[in-house]
Amino acid sequence: MIRFECDYNTGAHPQVLEALAATNLEPCPGYGEDEHCARAARMIRDLCRAPEADVHFLVGGTQANLTVIAAALRPHQGAVCTALAHINSHETGAVEATGHKLLPLPTGDGKLTAEQLDELCREHETDPAREHKTQPGLVYLSHPTELGTVYTRAELEAISQTAHRHGLLLYVDGARLAYGLAASDLTLPDLARLCDVFYLGGTKAGALFGEAVVILNETLKRDFRYLIKQRGGMLAKGRLLGVQFEALLADGLYERIGRKAVDQALRLKRALLDKGWPLMVDSPTNQQFVVVPDEIYAQLAQKYSTDYNGKPDPDHTAIRFCTGWSTSEEDLDALIADIRAL
Amino acid sequence: MIRFECDYNTGAHPQVLEALAATNLEPCPGYGEDEHCARAARMIRDLCRAPEADVHFLVGGTQANLTVIAAALRPHQGAVCTALAHINSHETGAVEATGHKLLPLPTGDGKLTAEQLDELCREHETDPAREHKTQPGLVYLSHPTELGTVYTRAELEAISQTAHRHGLLLYVDGARLAYGLAASDLTLPDLARLCDVFYLGGTKAGALFGEAVVILNETLKRDFRYLIKQRGGMLAKGRLLGVQFEALLADGLYERIGRKAVDQALRLKRALLDKGWPLMVDSPTNQQFVVVPDEIYAQLAQKYSTDYNGKPDPDHTAIRFCTGWSTSEEDLDALIADIRAL
Amino acid sequence: MIRFECDYNTGAHPQVLEALAATNLEPCPGYGEDEHCARAARMIRDLCRAPEADVHFLVGGTQANLTVIAAALRPHQGAVCTALAHINSHETGAVEATGHKLLPLPTGDGKLTAEQLDELCREHETDPAREHKTQPGLVYLSHPTELGTVYTRAELEAISQTAHRHGLLLYVDGARLAYGLAASDLTLPDLARLCDVFYLGGTKAGALFGEAVVILNETLKRDFRYLIKQRGGMLAKGRLLGVQFEALLADGLYERIGRKAVDQALRLKRALLDKGWPLMVDSPTNQQFVVVPDEIYAQLAQKYSTDYNGKPDPDHTAIRFCTGWSTSEEDLDALIADIRAL
Amino acid sequence: MIRFECDYNTGAHPQVLEALAATNLEPCPGYGEDEHCARAARMIRDLCRAPEADVHFLVGGTQANLTVIAAALRPHQGAVCTALAHINSHETGAVEATGHKLLPLPTGDGKLTAEQLDELCREHETDPAREHKTQPGLVYLSHPTELGTVYTRAELEAISQTAHRHGLLLYVDGARLAYGLAASDLTLPDLARLCDVFYLGGTKAGALFGEAVVILNETLKRDFRYLIKQRGGMLAKGRLLGVQFEALLADGLYERIGRKAVDQALRLKRALLDKGWPLMVDSPTNQQFVVVPDEIYAQLAQKYSTDYNGKPDPDHTAIRFCTGWSTSEEDLDALIADIRAL
Repeated sequence: MIRFECDYNTGAHPQVLEALAATNLEPCPGYGEDEHCARAARMIRDLCRAPEADVHFLVGGTQANLTVIAAALRPHQGAVCTALAHINSHETGAVEATGHKLLPLPTGDGKLTAEQLDELCREHETDPAREHKTQPGLVYLSHPTELGTVYTRAELEAISQTAHRHGLLLYVDGARLAYGLAASDLTLPDLARLCDVFYLGGTKAGALFGEAVVILNETLKRDFRYLIKQRGGMLAKGRLLGVQFEALLADGLYERIGRKAVDQALRLKRALLDKGWPLMVDSPTNQQFVVVPDEIYAQLAQKYSTDYNGKPDPDHTAIRFCTGWSTSEEDLDALIADIRAL
Repeated sequence: MIRFECDYNTGAHPQVLEALAATNLEPCPGYGEDEHCARAARMIRDLCRAPEADVHFLVGGTQANLTVIAAALRPHQGAVCTALAHINSHETGAVEATGHKLLPLPTGDGKLTAEQLDELCREHETDPAREHKTQPGLVYLSHPTELGTVYTRAELEAISQTAHRHGLLLYVDGARLAYGLAASDLTLPDLARLCDVFYLGGTKAGALFGEAVVILNETLKRDFRYLIKQRGGMLAKGRLLGVQFEALLADGLYERIGRKAVDQALRLKRALLDKGWPLMVDSPTNQQFVVVPDEIYAQLAQKYSTDYNGKPDPDHTAIRFCTGWSTSEEDLDALIADIRAL
Repeated sequence: MIRFECDYNTGAHPQVLEALAATNLEPCPGYGEDEHCARAARMIRDLCRAPEADVHFLVGGTQANLTVIAAALRPHQGAVCTALAHINSHETGAVEATGHKLLPLPTGDGKLTAEQLDELCREHETDPAREHKTQPGLVYLSHPTELGTVYTRAELEAISQTAHRHGLLLYVDGARLAYGLAASDLTLPDLARLCDVFYLGGTKAGALFGEAVVILNETLKRDFRYLIKQRGGMLAKGRLLGVQFEALLADGLYERIGRKAVDQALRLKRALLDKGWPLMVDSPTNQQFVVVPDEIYAQLAQKYSTDYNGKPDPDHTAIRFCTGWSTSEEDLDALIADIRAL
Repeated sequence: MIRFECDYNTGAHPQVLEALAATNLEPCPGYGEDEHCARAARMIRDLCRAPEADVHFLVGGTQANLTVIAAALRPHQGAVCTALAHINSHETGAVEATGHKLLPLPTGDGKLTAEQLDELCREHETDPAREHKTQPGLVYLSHPTELGTVYTRAELEAISQTAHRHGLLLYVDGARLAYGLAASDLTLPDLARLCDVFYLGGTKAGALFGEAVVILNETLKRDFRYLIKQRGGMLAKGRLLGVQFEALLADGLYERIGRKAVDQALRLKRALLDKGWPLMVDSPTNQQFVVVPDEIYAQLAQKYSTDYNGKPDPDHTAIRFCTGWSTSEEDLDALIADIRAL
């Protein structure tokens, strides 16, 4: 079985693993107060051109999402997101478990628009019964989205202005940010300039695990480490997170991993389009969602694993192909050849 | 201004107020452990033909909803409801504040169907990624619904069977149950037979305040008073709730209040239909939702208060008329005459 | 049985009940947005000499406590209180259910001192592992305390300064404030000047129910009605609370109720002391805690109900006598005579 | 600086690191549904002689504690523990953040007794006002405790019987279980027989991170993976946990790590006792708490790092020495020689 179902089915990029081995016997203070974390944080601040940013390293994405959102909101506030948002659809109600309602907006391509956000906020603000409703307090975006689509700089600028005009914070979930940076005009300095908080994902981009939360908003910075600890997100051997991000960011590795996987995915996308199979969305990143006839799906499934995404009609199946740091050219060539031969 | 905007804009039915005055100086134990509460509970058990039911008196509906739902669910479970459900749209995220996600289903007439419920449960049960999603744990219905519509006995039987087949509890919010009993074939013994828990609303049916929660499910009965106390719902002078429900239930008053307001609303409904104004739904209860041209709305608003329900198009406004225990025949006659004259 | 076990075992003071009856048929907007609530709020602002204060009316004390504390704290913060504090000992973990730890301090007389508070805060601030601990965010006092003792103006000034110096909010639970005002030099303007938020209790001072939360802190004022609604504390017929507080405050009734019950309790206290029975604390308010030999307790219990407070040794029982708005002079005379005769 | 302040300041035992490297490129399903986790779970069931046990791998201890406790309790229940318990003193209110109060009991040596537990439960059960108090629902023990002391089999049997007789679950936090197994007569099969749930700590015993939660109680088993996901504890590359526990358990490594560190700590303990310095408790495990004169502390601190534990009087300091998998004989010999020379 050749695996294309996700971007986290192998371990770490060799350079990351080497860094862990090289530092294994170094005695360090616990809980992220070591020099590796300090250095990795500095590297991120530099890349973001945000010398005032606070950087915290958490183990995983759900943990980052629930910790950030619960830190940002007052009890009566909720997080605006798309109906497809990971926090709404794939985290077992983790945000609600911290006491906050989500306010999902409809989406076709996984993206939310400044217009939708503006309308929702204006509706709330002008509703005479608004005190009986959840107040929008934060906007949650994924970049890339759950469907692999990306925001442009102009789109994020509009969302950021709209959010701030209505008093909302802007949070970007960057679980797959490595791939988003390779596929849109949005840069790390843009994110730091436009967001109140966002994270650079490590788990899906070559780390064993780890997400780097970058906080720009002054109020949100305050006491954030207490909140990490309270939600169970403070790793005893926090150095592991620092060491991994040092390795990922040291010589452009993070960028190269993103670039490579996106290039592979785009090669695959061309092959899918050449067959005339409809894509669910036009994704420029490492996830490609395609609808194939069931007999094709059956044939592919004998050799390749993909992620099942439901049946749009009785005769077709929607599947996701995913490339990642460990996707080999050989495997991709084989897949593309097999697709062309079908 | 003659008021038709809601069914809780006056105080209590005179018989209720008299009962409160008559018992005012009686010393009673606190927290609902008095003889009035015991007697009112007995009356409800009798009316429900449910000698094993537990009955608890709470002050208000949001409190009843959040206490019941948080008591019924494990942390990873959510409550299925309609998108229009009061808990989803008008309680400021009260259920989410106890840690639970809502699972809203689309609705046109305010009702949820057994088929929708079955499909949602089957989808969850067969989803390979279900552990990443909120598990349906309870179904929340309002009877009458937020749009004034009602469930039939057959519909509630189907929902009850579906819920229980999938391991969910069934909870019916009866904030306006007095009007539902007057307008459908569903009886209190039916509710006691089909639900795990439901409540008879007092606030909107002639009490100063108060809702009677009836628990049939054995597991849910356990320690329920602890949960009432914890959520701030245990009234120190709990006798006030017992006294009011004794008065409401003593000689069929609750039923008469429901019947009278429904009859009034149906008279009004005929007048609205005679004008050719479209109703939002075909409601058989004390709430009537109608869409009127804006100039008509402006004329009505000079003399009558109604509840604004948005603008379906630039030239029309949706409004709710509500009757209640204190709606006088004179006021209703005036309204109907004015409508006919428009 | 003549009842002295608590101050909430009868209904409302006749003037309160009359006001409810007089306004019963008045149509009012719901949810506390009526003229009665507005007027009662104005009266409280005047009495407090705090024209900028926000006043909200809630149904009960546990509800007020959990709503205020959850509104005031960030997720990693806790409420400092005494070990005997009502929120720590008699509310079924209501505050914890909103996600916040309590930080109880030892007490003999039910009071907390500025020194204790200062020490706890300094310990936290200087603890290198403080991020692993709950951060003190608010001080909760009861005035009078759960043992009937009171704070002096100088004591509350010291606590207020200490709290604010360490960045904590000060909250005073005034469930029995009517009795505290009658028994200490602390006035309503003092409370408004020193606290961030406090409440005037109605339930235990002649109302059917109701507590008036007074907010001085600007940040806490923001969106407080959303939070009341979310916690289930927004009464549909909110007018009932406004009407009752108007009646209580209109002509000094609240003060007279407090004064009368305290005078009665002090008469009783002299009788208890004359017998040589030790008091648990030296209470100047309407609650008197006394330790009596078991045979005395048995004799008293045949005619008088009291609140059982445990057995300090095998031969003695601690009990509480409570006076209130409805305690008659006849009943008190009988009790005192019987005590003297024992 | 030679480090003795904790047992988690280096990376992983070389065998653990090798296993991670050896499996790095293996493609695996995510979220702990891989063969490594399955194998490690099997090994734990075998070691516990508990073929029916469920085993789940979580990243850290706070996460394990909050997930287990929130899964086990109904909303009105709390966890009994000692005042020194990690959940009470060092987890930033993580359990309270899930809505549950802790019920701490006084302790001198870090242990809780069956008698204390029995008394607390009986007091609750016989309290007429118990519905106003948090109901004990679970007992939390640490073995070894936060002071390094251990429970005997007889002690745990008594606690287990007491807990179950009163309807409470028994949960043992085994963050340092490797050292407890080396220092008491309690075995893994004993824990599996007496507890409802416990965990074997990896982080403090040679893993990079990871705790293995073992569930014996049938009710608690149900849907536990949903709860892990909801609390942010489900690692995407869950294989990392399986691989590490396979390595730790494969050939008795876990036991050897525990044995070695305990032997080292006992050698150190003899040296401390020989100096006449009082120990805070008589610990048989890898943590030794000693009270030293301040000038001694100053001298030691120039060469050795220890964990500061407060000042029992103005002239003395309490410190903790900790040994672990990576403590070398050379470093220990140097420390002991220096102590003897002081």
